Amino acid sequence: MASEKVAVVMGSISDWDTMKLGCEVLDNLGIEYEKHIISAHRMPDELTSFGKEAEQNGFSVIIAGAGGAAHLPGMLAANTVLPVIGVPIKTRTLNGMDSLLSIVQMPFGAPVATVSIGDAGAKNAAILAVQVIARGNSSLRDKLLEFKQNQREEAKASEQRLD
Amino acid sequence: MASEKVAVVMGSISDWDTMKLGCEVLDNLGIEYEKHIISAHRMPDELTSFGKEAEQNGFSVIIAGAGGAAHLPGMLAANTVLPVIGVPIKTRTLNGMDSLLSIVQMPFGAPVATVSIGDAGAKNAAILAVQVIARGNSSLRDKLLEFKQNQREEAKASEQRLD
Amino acid sequence: MASEKVAVVMGSISDWDTMKLGCEVLDNLGIEYEKHIISAHRMPDELTSFGKEAEQNGFSVIIAGAGGAAHLPGMLAANTVLPVIGVPIKTRTLNGMDSLLSIVQMPFGAPVATVSIGDAGAKNAAILAVQVIARGNSSLRDKLLEFKQNQREEAKASEQRLD
Amino acid sequence: MASEKVAVVMGSISDWDTMKLGCEVLDNLGIEYEKHIISAHRMPDELTSFGKEAEQNGFSVIIAGAGGAAHLPGMLAANTVLPVIGVPIKTRTLNGMDSLLSIVQMPFGAPVATVSIGDAGAKNAAILAVQVIARGNSSLRDKLLEFKQNQREEAKASEQRLD
Amino acid sequence: MASEKVAVVMGSISDWDTMKLGCEVLDNLGIEYEKHIISAHRMPDELTSFGKEAEQNGFSVIIAGAGGAAHLPGMLAANTVLPVIGVPIKTRTLNGMDSLLSIVQMPFGAPVATVSIGDAGAKNAAILAVQVIARGNSSLRDKLLEFKQNQREEAKASEQRLD
Amino acid sequence: MASEKVAVVMGSISDWDTMKLGCEVLDNLGIEYEKHIISAHRMPDELTSFGKEAEQNGFSVIIAGAGGAAHLPGMLAANTVLPVIGVPIKTRTLNGMDSLLSIVQMPFGAPVATVSIGDAGAKNAAILAVQVIARGNSSLRDKLLEFKQNQREEAKASEQRLD
Amino acid sequence: MASEKVAVVMGSISDWDTMKLGCEVLDNLGIEYEKHIISAHRMPDELTSFGKEAEQNGFSVIIAGAGGAAHLPGMLAANTVLPVIGVPIKTRTLNGMDSLLSIVQMPFGAPVATVSIGDAGAKNAAILAVQVIARGNSSLRDKLLEFKQNQREEAKASEQRLD
Amino acid sequence: MASEKVAVVMGSISDWDTMKLGCEVLDNLGIEYEKHIISAHRMPDELTSFGKEAEQNGFSVIIAGAGGAAHLPGMLAANTVLPVIGVPIKTRTLNGMDSLLSIVQMPFGAPVATVSIGDAGAKNAAILAVQVIARGNSSLRDKLLEFKQNQREEAKASEQRLD
Repeated sequence: MASEKVAVVMGSISDWDTMKLGCEVLDNLGIEYEKHIISAHRMPDELTSFGKEAEQNGFSVIIAGAGGAAHLPGMLAANTVLPVIGVPIKTRTLNGMDSLLSIVQMPFGAPVATVSIGDAGAKNAAILAVQVIARGNSSLRDKLLEFKQNQREEAKASEQRLD
Repeated sequence: MASEKVAVVMGSISDWDTMKLGCEVLDNLGIEYEKHIISAHRMPDELTSFGKEAEQNGFSVIIAGAGGAAHLPGMLAANTVLPVIGVPIKTRTLNGMDSLLSIVQMPFGAPVATVSIGDAGAKNAAILAVQVIARGNSSLRDKLLEFKQNQREEAKASEQRLD
Repeated sequence: MASEKVAVVMGSISDWDTMKLGCEVLDNLGIEYEKHIISAHRMPDELTSFGKEAEQNGFSVIIAGAGGAAHLPGMLAANTVLPVIGVPIKTRTLNGMDSLLSIVQMPFGAPVATVSIGDAGAKNAAILAVQVIARGNSSLRDKLLEFKQNQREEAKASEQRLD
Repeated sequence: MASEKVAVVMGSISDWDTMKLGCEVLDNLGIEYEKHIISAHRMPDELTSFGKEAEQNGFSVIIAGAGGAAHLPGMLAANTVLPVIGVPIKTRTLNGMDSLLSIVQMPFGAPVATVSIGDAGAKNAAILAVQVIARGNSSLRDKLLEFKQNQREEAKASEQRLD
Repeated sequence: MASEKVAVVMGSISDWDTMKLGCEVLDNLGIEYEKHIISAHRMPDELTSFGKEAEQNGFSVIIAGAGGAAHLPGMLAANTVLPVIGVPIKTRTLNGMDSLLSIVQMPFGAPVATVSIGDAGAKNAAILAVQVIARGNSSLRDKLLEFKQNQREEAKASEQRLD
Repeated sequence: MASEKVAVVMGSISDWDTMKLGCEVLDNLGIEYEKHIISAHRMPDELTSFGKEAEQNGFSVIIAGAGGAAHLPGMLAANTVLPVIGVPIKTRTLNGMDSLLSIVQMPFGAPVATVSIGDAGAKNAAILAVQVIARGNSSLRDKLLEFKQNQREEAKASEQRLD
Repeated sequence: MASEKVAVVMGSISDWDTMKLGCEVLDNLGIEYEKHIISAHRMPDELTSFGKEAEQNGFSVIIAGAGGAAHLPGMLAANTVLPVIGVPIKTRTLNGMDSLLSIVQMPFGAPVATVSIGDAGAKNAAILAVQVIARGNSSLRDKLLEFKQNQREEAKASEQRLD
Repeated sequence: MASEKVAVVMGSISDWDTMKLGCEVLDNLGIEYEKHIISAHRMPDELTSFGKEAEQNGFSVIIAGAGGAAHLPGMLAANTVLPVIGVPIKTRTLNGMDSLLSIVQMPFGAPVATVSIGDAGAKNAAILAVQVIARGNSSLRDKLLEFKQNQREEAKASEQRLD
């Protein structure tokens, strides 16, 4: 499965501080990915092309982060049948509630797999993408189990820091 | 100005009950318009084409109604420099708060002129479209003033119904 | 891939009116699935077992619907590395906003792929599950493309009903 | 069309930090404008006069920014048939949700073209105003297309900063 | 104090179902009042006149009910130094949260004494108006005390209906 | 009217930063007032006594500020027929939305005249209190008109600072 | 422990439809209780007395239901050191969000054990009250375990109704 | 009653800054307690064990703090019949509204005694836990009365700091 590759796209360079946290997770799990800026409202043609060609370009999953009237994830979902994971970016005015509702409330036919607002969401999007890819890939599945086990150990160990 | 024409588009046939209220206002003011269903998530190519060709197809303003993760108005705005008026459709779960935030919270570059949620919004979108068209058109401007005067008279007259 | 099977679980029999809409989508796409009631708060042991054994029981994806303090999707995600799709059920008091936040705001490590509140979400969860399964399955992928094409045609045809 | 002029009004000097971002956009596009402070609640007579006389004073569009119980845009709309664009100013307590609802939820007859909360809204209001003025003005329309193209280029170029 | 008179104004005939509950309270307490429809957005001149002339027309307090982008109470407060009591009318889309924020979030200088959303608010506005008038009027004060005592007795008696 | 006196009470010393802004307004208008801390939840007996005795202690109006589950204004209203003005204090978690709803949503019989959240509310409470007292007091009424005129002049003058 | 008795109080007869569901739970578990209407705003003296005397009157726990600006639970908590359980009643305007925030956001010193909005909350308040009483009472503890087991069996059995 | 012991558990080390405020209250009241980190999503087995064994391990009450999709309190309640007190931790994106709804909106059968968001909630959880334990323990009850009296005195004394 040499072609298992994740697309990490975002609507603006200002989303990068959040989205790179997801890229680090992918790095840690040894997942190949490409990162792109595709503004739904400034680059609508590129958005369409990206969505339509994502599968033939070797992507298995798309992670898309956007804020405010966040149309990127949903419009990608309109243009592909690949799973699209949406990361609601925290906004300065409404704290990401606008991003969340703009991403999650999709009508029947074009689902967006929405994760939590902000940093935790960006990281979880990476985990979710790997979970999708890991189907039928036992080594990747083992990595996920190991990651889960590590998180558990760290959580348990952190109890010692309750001073 | 024979070509002054308004486009009234909506994301779904279920939006028609709301959007037709706006069409009635346009009818009453004698404005030419076309009505179309363009689902952002089911007809993304048609959305793109409609946006790109709206001006050459003779439209002066676009009214777009959508609900939930309402991407239609914003994506049209991404594809045209015509004014786009967004009508947030009331939704069954969140009463249109999701529609409102998805439409109004646009980033710099692709504004959507958002009006109120639901029926009042659909009607106001029509008035706003006419206000845009009325610039430099004194007969249309007079119609708007007459409409405003009529509303005033009706409001004043309604006081008699306070029993 | 005879074993590609989806789990459709819900927290209460009262969620069935919503969740069966997703099952109908799976039926239409010819996807094998099992449906179960697993109340996070009344059947916590069954929840744990179900999560831990889901993979060896042949499930590829889990769809979990719950309302209010909706813990079922997240707790399943805590017990498996399979992708978990969460459907926020509309509630009588807060219209599903409580369900949405309880499901989507997961911390790093246990993502839930959250879809829209209520009926649209239940149906979208099914599409999303199939998108996950369709990876590397060209006939399933073709079914998704056909479904998308059908939705497009229906949306276009509905324009005729704008009377 | 020498008289194409935009009015930029705001309810308080404290709104200026936001509203001047819109003025800069108008400057960049070479649009003539006047800026004024008109507090709906402290200068109601000036508000009325400004609305009633806006057209004869040569304005084509009014941009009005206000926060909290933001009545300025709606009351201007009550006094003119010019298009009124409302900018919800971010507030310290409710982050501008109060401003947004006070501006957008107008009843039938006096629409306010509402844009996003805060800085993005102020800039988008300027774009929207120019879109209204650009009708039938091909050089202005070209400026808008150029602006759109520039934004696209910048967005594409920003991808290089994903380190 | 023959001239103690309350003004009950509302933005629309559709508010009457709510506002008449307040009028009934005034009737029961023997308070003189006038009821008027003054739409902030359709009758802005009448609003201004009403506010400016309210005191000389013998009003001691103004009760103003409005819904959605509810500007009536605040604009009256901008035009008078009489106490203005605002009743947020319940709306079909946002249940009156929009009305509440549009009325209560007034800037320094033009307070609106806001009461609860809907029916309870209309009735409480009447009580509040009488509380204002009752200052220095011992018979009216006694009526309020009697009203309060009656409410207490009724509340106590209602316990018998707990079957 | 030597006994016209305002009570300014608050639930906690931490509310003082907000409430003192209202006291300054009262100072500027030459209004006599007393300031007290009465915690609804720590000093319930003092609350009851204060409410019951407020009138005989010479108060004409009560201003009460509280945050979170803000019960002080409403419980004072339960114990007096004097007008009670409620100031919702901004809170660290929910920004004062909790305070607002706890204060404004009173049932029939015990109205609280609620003003805006935070600093503007504290100052407006003072104006509202004076508006209540000014009934039948022409010199106080003139002060209010002068205050209003000053605000108007300042607002107009501030336009010069639009650089 | 003959004196283990629960108080079920509510602010209004209109809360009874909700609160009686909790009483039925207490009946089913064989718990002694008294039910009372105590309106915080109409019967403040009775509220104070009830709180202060609750312990000596043999109550072990107080369940208090209220809606809107729901002050009853918190004010009882101010007057007793018994555990007070608050039930936010669903309201017609804000669906109980106002009740929830008015009850739960208590300051340090007077906690209210808040349960879910509406019917589920009323029933859960009963369970919680019994959990408090069951401490050191093995037969009551066994009843709770049996209740829990029954709920589990019913939930499991309900799966058969997934048709 | 040597075994009266409170469990203070939290979902993450990052909750400690909040939860330790509750521990300090327990310390001040001389209550024995254990503190633990149990992440619902990283340590689901430990959560289950902790819940099931809490009673036999000598705990009388469980205080559980968690943020975001806060499942810890509710899942503990699913696994025990001890009273579970939930503390909604303030979150960076939604300020704890997500935590609150995830904790409080429990279905019938597994109540969580929810307290206020953040610091006040952590401290109130401790008071509530002691109120539960104090049943039938007159010395502990006296401590609570003394604490209440101290709070009252401090509140009264703080009035002197109104400068």
